[in-house]
Amino acid sequence: MPYVNIKVTQENGGLTKEQKSELIEGATKLLQDKLNKNPETTIVIVEEVDMDNWGIGAEQVSDRRKEGK
Amino acid sequence: MPYVNIKVTQENGGLTKEQKSELIEGATKLLQDKLNKNPETTIVIVEEVDMDNWGIGAEQVSDRRKEGK
Amino acid sequence: MPYVNIKVTQENGGLTKEQKSELIEGATKLLQDKLNKNPETTIVIVEEVDMDNWGIGAEQVSDRRKEGK
Amino acid sequence: MPYVNIKVTQENGGLTKEQKSELIEGATKLLQDKLNKNPETTIVIVEEVDMDNWGIGAEQVSDRRKEGK
Amino acid sequence: MPYVNIKVTQENGGLTKEQKSELIEGATKLLQDKLNKNPETTIVIVEEVDMDNWGIGAEQVSDRRKEGK
Amino acid sequence: MPYVNIKVTQENGGLTKEQKSELIEGATKLLQDKLNKNPETTIVIVEEVDMDNWGIGAEQVSDRRKEGK
Repeated sequence: MPYVNIKVTQENGGLTKEQKSELIEGATKLLQDKLNKNPETTIVIVEEVDMDNWGIGAEQVSDRRKEGK
Repeated sequence: MPYVNIKVTQENGGLTKEQKSELIEGATKLLQDKLNKNPETTIVIVEEVDMDNWGIGAEQVSDRRKEGK
Repeated sequence: MPYVNIKVTQENGGLTKEQKSELIEGATKLLQDKLNKNPETTIVIVEEVDMDNWGIGAEQVSDRRKEGK
Repeated sequence: MPYVNIKVTQENGGLTKEQKSELIEGATKLLQDKLNKNPETTIVIVEEVDMDNWGIGAEQVSDRRKEGK
Repeated sequence: MPYVNIKVTQENGGLTKEQKSELIEGATKLLQDKLNKNPETTIVIVEEVDMDNWGIGAEQVSDRRKEGK
Repeated sequence: MPYVNIKVTQENGGLTKEQKSELIEGATKLLQDKLNKNPETTIVIVEEVDMDNWGIGAEQVSDRRKEGK
């Protein structure tokens, strides 16, 4: 019963349903393949964070994107 | 000063204010009753997660609900 | 399939197995009673944090305990 | 590469972009000054939580604010 | 700069260094392949939780394992 | 009543009590100065993570340190 939490910045309108599904499948498969964990009790939560709310290099990602970073 | 974080899927329009209040009261009371923690410094945070963003069994909960799971 | 994370300071040698069990049972029952969630897919994780690592009022809990707070 | 997560209640329309930037800068500087951590790989995430979803003293912050707390 | 947090129960003496490395590689590759994220700023944290501290079905995993679950 | 969680790798024997205190004070002061938050209900939790358990660039920090990164 692993718990996986994936946080990414919300960019270009946010992730599509399909992209979220791929992350969920991929993370579940990773734990099944490597640690033989049961997918039926593996929880994966994908969180998208506004670029104003995510900082790296002491800058908001929203500003970094404007600078082409 | 316990910290309790409760994550649930956002279903049927989401939790009502009353339901959130019941979770907050219940979790605070649990820690007071079992561990004698002071309610005044017990933080409870309820997070609702979109069903597309929550996976179990390698599937998005939104899809599982369509399949009656 | 709720996810509940309970963080408390590690005090007096830490929680007993029985106390952890009571928190797990209580949190699971709370979500079953209030939101009709299935206990079989409700994850509860109890985390104990060293008192040096937990701050409130800009002080480490370890110091506050020495001051009788 | 520290990871800092700051959760606050969403009040008065929520934090401005400038306030979020100040929290990101301040947290990054704190880790640089105290632990000599590299800002370029220091992640800071600011999360605002609805006052109905945040409880303290077994009450929702939304209700506490109405009572002037 | 995604942030991935993987929590699993600590079983059979805990994960080997190699298993942790596989989880880190796999999670980083997943985000690179699916969302074109830069591995150099992708943080993956693996947390092992004592089986007494992890509950599912209102039971501690330590007890479930004794019951062959 | 902000909640601040700081995760850093455990290096060189881990943080001293004094370093943890400085992070707690600094984070609490940051929220007081910038958002006028009450220190008495500001929780700061410092978590140290084993270098084998923290990955960046698809590598464990323990290995990166051996390579002088």
